[in-house]
Amino acid sequence: MSQHSGVPPLTIQRLPLYLRCLIQLQSQRVDVVNSQRIAELAGTNAAQVRKDLSYLGEFGVRGLGYEVDSLVIHLARWLGLQHTRNIAIIGYGRLGAALQGYGGLQDRGFLVTAVFDIDAEKVGESISGGIVVESMDRFAEVVQENNIELVIITVPASVAQGVAETVVNGGVKAILNFAPLRLELPPDVTVRQADLAAELQILSYHLREDFGL
Amino acid sequence: MSQHSGVPPLTIQRLPLYLRCLIQLQSQRVDVVNSQRIAELAGTNAAQVRKDLSYLGEFGVRGLGYEVDSLVIHLARWLGLQHTRNIAIIGYGRLGAALQGYGGLQDRGFLVTAVFDIDAEKVGESISGGIVVESMDRFAEVVQENNIELVIITVPASVAQGVAETVVNGGVKAILNFAPLRLELPPDVTVRQADLAAELQILSYHLREDFGL
Repeated sequence: MSQHSGVPPLTIQRLPLYLRCLIQLQSQRVDVVNSQRIAELAGTNAAQVRKDLSYLGEFGVRGLGYEVDSLVIHLARWLGLQHTRNIAIIGYGRLGAALQGYGGLQDRGFLVTAVFDIDAEKVGESISGGIVVESMDRFAEVVQENNIELVIITVPASVAQGVAETVVNGGVKAILNFAPLRLELPPDVTVRQADLAAELQILSYHLREDFGL
Repeated sequence: MSQHSGVPPLTIQRLPLYLRCLIQLQSQRVDVVNSQRIAELAGTNAAQVRKDLSYLGEFGVRGLGYEVDSLVIHLARWLGLQHTRNIAIIGYGRLGAALQGYGGLQDRGFLVTAVFDIDAEKVGESISGGIVVESMDRFAEVVQENNIELVIITVPASVAQGVAETVVNGGVKAILNFAPLRLELPPDVTVRQADLAAELQILSYHLREDFGL
């Protein structure tokens, strides 16, 4: 994935967290915030916050801080959240159903507008949100009809690579992959790998290191 | 969370990925691997791999590479995976059920041995794996009986802080939190925050930056 803007990948990874903290401050009617307070909310340090935000331009006022409203607008613009992005879920198993029913997406810029499955028995089923489960055979067509920009893959690892290739052939450039394998795709496609076991292993590291468990 | 070993947090985050790649090489009966090949599989660069692995001690052979079997053992030991760790899921909604049924945990070191819910209607229900949904009132007791070391929280944000405090009072030091809020807990408790919307926002950043979408 390219980095035209020169913003480091790890800074990009922290921007959604800053945005979440700032929206929380907005809801508490805070007008101005300094980097120290943002850092406390985000679980990082003030120097890191200032450095990260400096990539987005100069709009903090030294000694005062940042205007919350304008920083929210600025961060949302950098994250490409000016319009709600339509997403599709591929794989309507338990995880796919949990994600489709998850309420925490729409207020953060995303709307599930299509669900696909490769199981013929599930195709045609009416699910919540007025959605009918579609066949992967219709992927490119449904993507066009629904202006889908991102997909979440929740199919088994054994079929995930083939599914991902259909996604890419359908013109989608952004994938969040829950299948436990690394997808091999063209370099212009951005893939984020969700790996639950890796998160647990990081916790396990800390149990060993901090408590000798 | 403390860092007694001096291993940087971002290195720790990459160790599970390296372990996954090396186990893949093991399954392909590869005996020795160089940092370039690990980097290709992990989606990073060779210098980063060598630097990360150097924190774990000196066991690569210059010009040859790493013995796959011994590196797997070494990484697993650093990640505290010598024994299978028992975990509990708190919140038996759609997400909790999906995670409980997820097959990709046991071969990576974790076993779900208890499930809790705060809904009295769900408590007592028999679910797969011979598990009965428990009440949070019995949390400390069940943790002791089952030797639970990690928990996954999938309850709604409105009740997550209270649930997390019960977890900590029950003696558990490691939490993977799917509830969309930042938990305020003692510094010796390690929390990893699962944030699906943040992953989608990072993808959205790349759509804007790379394709002007």
